[in-house]
Amino acid sequence: MRVSLGLTRWAVAAVASVAVAFSAMAKNDPLPSWNEGANKSAIISFVEKVTDKAGKDYVPPAERIATFDNDGTLWVEHPMYTQLAFALDRLKVLAPQHPEWKTTQPFKAALEGDMKTLGESGVGGLMKIVAVTHAGMSTEAFEKIVSGWIAEAKHPRFQRPYTELVYQPMLEVIKYLQQNDFKTFIVSGGGIEFMRPWTARVYNIPPQNVVGSSVKTEYKNVDGKPELLRLADIAFIDDKEGKPVGINSHIGLRPIAAFGNSNGDEQMLQWTAAGPGARLMMLVYHDDPVREYAYGPAGGLPNTPFGTFSPALMDEADKSGWHVIHMKDDWATVFPPQ
Amino acid sequence: MRVSLGLTRWAVAAVASVAVAFSAMAKNDPLPSWNEGANKSAIISFVEKVTDKAGKDYVPPAERIATFDNDGTLWVEHPMYTQLAFALDRLKVLAPQHPEWKTTQPFKAALEGDMKTLGESGVGGLMKIVAVTHAGMSTEAFEKIVSGWIAEAKHPRFQRPYTELVYQPMLEVIKYLQQNDFKTFIVSGGGIEFMRPWTARVYNIPPQNVVGSSVKTEYKNVDGKPELLRLADIAFIDDKEGKPVGINSHIGLRPIAAFGNSNGDEQMLQWTAAGPGARLMMLVYHDDPVREYAYGPAGGLPNTPFGTFSPALMDEADKSGWHVIHMKDDWATVFPPQ
Repeated sequence: MRVSLGLTRWAVAAVASVAVAFSAMAKNDPLPSWNEGANKSAIISFVEKVTDKAGKDYVPPAERIATFDNDGTLWVEHPMYTQLAFALDRLKVLAPQHPEWKTTQPFKAALEGDMKTLGESGVGGLMKIVAVTHAGMSTEAFEKIVSGWIAEAKHPRFQRPYTELVYQPMLEVIKYLQQNDFKTFIVSGGGIEFMRPWTARVYNIPPQNVVGSSVKTEYKNVDGKPELLRLADIAFIDDKEGKPVGINSHIGLRPIAAFGNSNGDEQMLQWTAAGPGARLMMLVYHDDPVREYAYGPAGGLPNTPFGTFSPALMDEADKSGWHVIHMKDDWATVFPPQ
Repeated sequence: MRVSLGLTRWAVAAVASVAVAFSAMAKNDPLPSWNEGANKSAIISFVEKVTDKAGKDYVPPAERIATFDNDGTLWVEHPMYTQLAFALDRLKVLAPQHPEWKTTQPFKAALEGDMKTLGESGVGGLMKIVAVTHAGMSTEAFEKIVSGWIAEAKHPRFQRPYTELVYQPMLEVIKYLQQNDFKTFIVSGGGIEFMRPWTARVYNIPPQNVVGSSVKTEYKNVDGKPELLRLADIAFIDDKEGKPVGINSHIGLRPIAAFGNSNGDEQMLQWTAAGPGARLMMLVYHDDPVREYAYGPAGGLPNTPFGTFSPALMDEADKSGWHVIHMKDDWATVFPPQ
């Protein structure tokens, strides 16, 4: 019995691995950077269902809306949000014109890399940094600053441009959905005008499909030239409860698929799940310290101010049929080739 | 001399009218409801220029953004904005549950059709009407109310559904631009969620391409079901200076073509005009009392609270090379056939 059971197991395993190999080798695999498993299957079976005209789950192209968080879902968010790295770099560039920053918080802490004191300055401190790095200029001028920085800046650990530290498996999901007539949107807590200059090139997602946090802008004639000036007032925070609000304001349709990675995405997934018909909700869990990072108390990993994945969110995912993508097991490749 | 000059004139006129007739008969005329003339030519030559890969004015498809005001530009705005007609009808529906409205302004005036008193109630009065007709319900419930009303309501003069009182020549412009890989957007002072339920069907412009005024919404769990509740607070007014702000927030790209009809569109046209390269700015002027309406002091016609076209705007259009569409002369047809 033992031998035959062993043989059976061996046969099943062999058949399974041959099947996996064939599937991965198949020319038409839309997700080659995904390991075979429940998550890859869930994506493919969802797309097949909603595009099958004869099936009960068919969704017309106009209603095929998919939303993606950005930080930690499409690109790296450690050791800090890329936009924070941008703000700190901007402070350094501007510091010579502001000698008073050497002795004034939160600028002193930011310039010295004293993250603890910077964190303790709270929302008020953060707003002071946003005011001098993200406001007081035209939208055009800001776009140039962002484009210049993103072309030059490198991630401290990987020593690659941030726009190369996007997740190859997620690029494949975006492309696969687009090929199936989905409209793909970014819905991020990050600044909308920090993302728009590069999302078309990097994700094939155009500016009008980017939803994010924003400062107020003011239309003004400056020396006979109309300009939009960026003010040091927050207009909208596209995070947590803000995500369904931003989706409604910018898209006007409820997504049928939503991808996130942290507590900030909970409400977007709830909102997506609450619609009728087939739905796909996925959360990326970062458990791969070798190829990327490992964080998230939900799986016993360290907590982090960037991309918290709480045990309560994991419970909700389990209970609600949301798929948790384990980076380590689900992704054959993490980043695009250099 | 006199005779030969007369003959020459006659010959020129004859050749010109034959040319016009041929052109209008051409199977490929993208704008059959437009009379031949400078405005029709301006549209066609603009589209040919920006789509000519070899030309100096070529614009890649991703940047071919065109924005359209709605009231008075794409559909009738007299004798009052359609959304105001909706609000007044809603008040009547709700009145039996609010006996106090019989004696409270601005409800009394609205229910009695006393437009003078209603107008005098100002923004405060209008907000009270918005609060009871446009807020205090979920976004889903509001969409159902709008869809039900727009399917049933009829214009008092033309006795046709409002969605049939759209301008056939402008439908042709939208289609022509879309066929040339333009992304077409509505940018209206009207309520974003009042327009979205029907713009895809009527204009082939999907919800995500509609920019408008909005109330604040709040994400809330109601009996375990996530809902977006419409609050009686204005979030954004998409008019005048608000139009470039709304364009920037929703689209993130500057239009290369913009269509309006009133002072509320001035800044949108300025913003469009101020970009580099070929640009097309057009204003519809309503001078056709027989087929539609005649208003606008710019041309000596009566002023109106709905769709003011001031002499200063006409001066700016002349000075800036913006095209003024004269409904009476430029449009062979006004509305689609019944």
